[in-house]
Amino acid sequence: MTKTKRGLFVGRFQPYHIGHHAAIKRILEEVDELVIVIGSSKESYTLKDPFTSGERVEMVVCALKKEGLNDRCYTIPVEDINENALWVSRVLSYCPKFDVVYSNNPLIKELFGGIGIPVKKSVSKNGKIEAYKIREAIMKGKVWEKHVPKAVASYLKSIRAAKRLHAIVAEEKKQ
Amino acid sequence: MTKTKRGLFVGRFQPYHIGHHAAIKRILEEVDELVIVIGSSKESYTLKDPFTSGERVEMVVCALKKEGLNDRCYTIPVEDINENALWVSRVLSYCPKFDVVYSNNPLIKELFGGIGIPVKKSVSKNGKIEAYKIREAIMKGKVWEKHVPKAVASYLKSIRAAKRLHAIVAEEKKQ
Amino acid sequence: MTKTKRGLFVGRFQPYHIGHHAAIKRILEEVDELVIVIGSSKESYTLKDPFTSGERVEMVVCALKKEGLNDRCYTIPVEDINENALWVSRVLSYCPKFDVVYSNNPLIKELFGGIGIPVKKSVSKNGKIEAYKIREAIMKGKVWEKHVPKAVASYLKSIRAAKRLHAIVAEEKKQ
Amino acid sequence: MTKTKRGLFVGRFQPYHIGHHAAIKRILEEVDELVIVIGSSKESYTLKDPFTSGERVEMVVCALKKEGLNDRCYTIPVEDINENALWVSRVLSYCPKFDVVYSNNPLIKELFGGIGIPVKKSVSKNGKIEAYKIREAIMKGKVWEKHVPKAVASYLKSIRAAKRLHAIVAEEKKQ
Amino acid sequence: MTKTKRGLFVGRFQPYHIGHHAAIKRILEEVDELVIVIGSSKESYTLKDPFTSGERVEMVVCALKKEGLNDRCYTIPVEDINENALWVSRVLSYCPKFDVVYSNNPLIKELFGGIGIPVKKSVSKNGKIEAYKIREAIMKGKVWEKHVPKAVASYLKSIRAAKRLHAIVAEEKKQ
Amino acid sequence: MTKTKRGLFVGRFQPYHIGHHAAIKRILEEVDELVIVIGSSKESYTLKDPFTSGERVEMVVCALKKEGLNDRCYTIPVEDINENALWVSRVLSYCPKFDVVYSNNPLIKELFGGIGIPVKKSVSKNGKIEAYKIREAIMKGKVWEKHVPKAVASYLKSIRAAKRLHAIVAEEKKQ
Repeated sequence: MTKTKRGLFVGRFQPYHIGHHAAIKRILEEVDELVIVIGSSKESYTLKDPFTSGERVEMVVCALKKEGLNDRCYTIPVEDINENALWVSRVLSYCPKFDVVYSNNPLIKELFGGIGIPVKKSVSKNGKIEAYKIREAIMKGKVWEKHVPKAVASYLKSIRAAKRLHAIVAEEKKQ
Repeated sequence: MTKTKRGLFVGRFQPYHIGHHAAIKRILEEVDELVIVIGSSKESYTLKDPFTSGERVEMVVCALKKEGLNDRCYTIPVEDINENALWVSRVLSYCPKFDVVYSNNPLIKELFGGIGIPVKKSVSKNGKIEAYKIREAIMKGKVWEKHVPKAVASYLKSIRAAKRLHAIVAEEKKQ
Repeated sequence: MTKTKRGLFVGRFQPYHIGHHAAIKRILEEVDELVIVIGSSKESYTLKDPFTSGERVEMVVCALKKEGLNDRCYTIPVEDINENALWVSRVLSYCPKFDVVYSNNPLIKELFGGIGIPVKKSVSKNGKIEAYKIREAIMKGKVWEKHVPKAVASYLKSIRAAKRLHAIVAEEKKQ
Repeated sequence: MTKTKRGLFVGRFQPYHIGHHAAIKRILEEVDELVIVIGSSKESYTLKDPFTSGERVEMVVCALKKEGLNDRCYTIPVEDINENALWVSRVLSYCPKFDVVYSNNPLIKELFGGIGIPVKKSVSKNGKIEAYKIREAIMKGKVWEKHVPKAVASYLKSIRAAKRLHAIVAEEKKQ
Repeated sequence: MTKTKRGLFVGRFQPYHIGHHAAIKRILEEVDELVIVIGSSKESYTLKDPFTSGERVEMVVCALKKEGLNDRCYTIPVEDINENALWVSRVLSYCPKFDVVYSNNPLIKELFGGIGIPVKKSVSKNGKIEAYKIREAIMKGKVWEKHVPKAVASYLKSIRAAKRLHAIVAEEKKQ
Repeated sequence: MTKTKRGLFVGRFQPYHIGHHAAIKRILEEVDELVIVIGSSKESYTLKDPFTSGERVEMVVCALKKEGLNDRCYTIPVEDINENALWVSRVLSYCPKFDVVYSNNPLIKELFGGIGIPVKKSVSKNGKIEAYKIREAIMKGKVWEKHVPKAVASYLKSIRAAKRLHAIVAEEKKQ
């Protein structure tokens, strides 16, 4: 009998885009199950983090379901902590146990490596896709749909993402 | 085309037992999908809340997988808030959108009802099963395995639940 | 030209009763203006603190208006702080400047006295009136109306206080 | 018998200026009572928020009293919440019940509108008056008195606002 | 050249008594340096935690100085965290690096042991001395001086500990 | 018999450098004992605050020990508070009692002066030494050792400060 091998992948998913999607599909070729941490889980209705955790869970899950991958994933919102030295402990406490972290973030590597958890490069994660550019495109009425999985594009329209982003940008400009 | 109907179910799952399990299976006969909130998500290593959120996610998911139900559920840890009047907003912000709440808790009914979300009785939830009695049985070396789904019993043994509960009780007694 | 003399009075007002009311009227014979702190401002929907700050503001103000005293009072919600040593600083920061504190609470006397603010006895504050007994009477369907100012009794009925207290007690019993 | 109609108006009031004052007087022609939320209530002694909540309450109230309007207003400090999605709930919990919000802020409109509370434009609020320019004028020894109600100008001098702003700016420059 | 060996010892020190003192002297026979964590550092002015962190630092240090041991110790206030699973990380982040923990607390053993830090019994720590009995004796005017180091007894008198405890108990009784 | 005279000195010590060191030695010519507050104690693993409180305690203490000054100092980590008006109270609560504050910070002067504690200039504190330039030099592989006490230079190498700063800067650039 073989033990399940589990990975961990961290993102803010504002929004969940095809770069995230490709990276996750790639990792699922190497591990049996994947814990997907939705970072900065409490942030919402800001330019950097317009979507709530609940909305981000919906984006991730609807895209994974289309691929039949959802049943192998755990999607867990984890809030920020103002003490970086404690963030790894919070992730360990909130998530099902995992064997390996996939990340290109050197700080995540430093923090997890420091307690003996291996960290591997996540290959295609950011490719040319940057979430902030997608948010900008939504705001400015440019083409953005092709940068996110189809199910996510439909979802974002259903919650009227463009209207929300306009409201946020109008407010933040003024301050 | 039919819209997905989603329910919400809240528990602390310390541990996840056959009462929870029966209630959830019952609800899944009425709704397409179910959001399962793991309440008091930050609490752990206390007599009332010995298990971390990550451990509770594992318990819920391993039991649901045995029944082939996991892919229809969202398991979301939600921390307490010291302002009861804000708890409903936090649940709404953390969870995928839902249409109906299943609960026998009159305060949950008051709070969700106040903003127009229907609350239905959750039939078998507590039956005769009480989580604190299971925690007691684990501590005292009595029979407890039959009160939790089989997969949960194995899991609890694998993390040496009894040893942890002994450590906690020794400490809390002393204070 | 004479300087305005201001007092400070602290209460949780769960609910605002005739003991509070008599004390405040008495103090207003000695000072020009009174700052009324609504303590534990974040607590609500619990047995000890069933009413929100907003509701407590309404109770205090409607009673003061009946007496034509509201325009001489500042009603300020102040949340608890888990560091007692800092509570006085928070009160100073949240409230208009005051010259004297009215309180029978020896800890408040110790804390304010320690920084040189005089503390005077508040004469009739608690008389025989205890807020927890009024909450109990509401829950049990006994007579409670005579223990609160008339305007407060009407207000409590308009927000269906008894129904809320029943919901809370049912929940807290179960835990 | 007619029900009281209540409005809500939100500001940081750093300081309370003639733009705020004109807007509030205008709103009070449409509603019976007005809840004035002092936002970012915990901030103080920074360049953006030099004045404490208590000082801001004094500014608002002394200006309203000059017009005989204070008795129709509730001045309530409300702290920020790092979860935007919960801010509306906190306002609802801290404030007396209100029927309509007056604001030109599109995010406030989005958040309150989302739960069915009407939001109306606040006509003259920002006119040409910007609080940060007044803070700058105070710091630089330029004319600022005409931008705030007379009673507020006297109050700001009595607490030596210029001296405080100099201390803050010297510190923030250095960081 | 030999590496410094450091121990860790945790207490609330409400107040610092001869049991703590004996345990610490004993440990300093085994290690070169000792980190003394003042737990629950934010609590003060309650029956369980009447003294501030600053006062507790003074007690510990004045007693250690009498023995010439202070220069080998680090006295570090560490606040509680409502997530037990993160407490060990906070201790690691706040304290100079240590090699071994001295504690009779099974939960501390479980938590530190779980990350590979050895935990040894602390021999005489609690002997027959219990801090809450000393607090009671102070309140009731009974003999308590012999249960604390001489320097601590003088210190407690200088801050009028008995008066503070009376104020606290009067308040807590009433609630 | 003469009373001990105690001073207070506040710094973030990211890292502890020869400017801090000279200032502290100078102050210790005027006072018997010195309370050294390690500010922003919870911050770590950021560009502005790369080192944990525990690491900063080690830096300060190892430098003071070389001079035989440690036994006259109290090194106390104090976290930031988002309410500036409360920060002084927190310092008073966390630290042994002190008679005079040494600081060139006008805001600290305003805040302590407001409650009657004298504030004196700290002469050589910042000289030409700026902590952020030392952090930059470490990152860029330039000479930095001469700007910190020797014992601190050794310590920083032992915890591989340069590697950590590289990881942090790589991450912060990307955001």
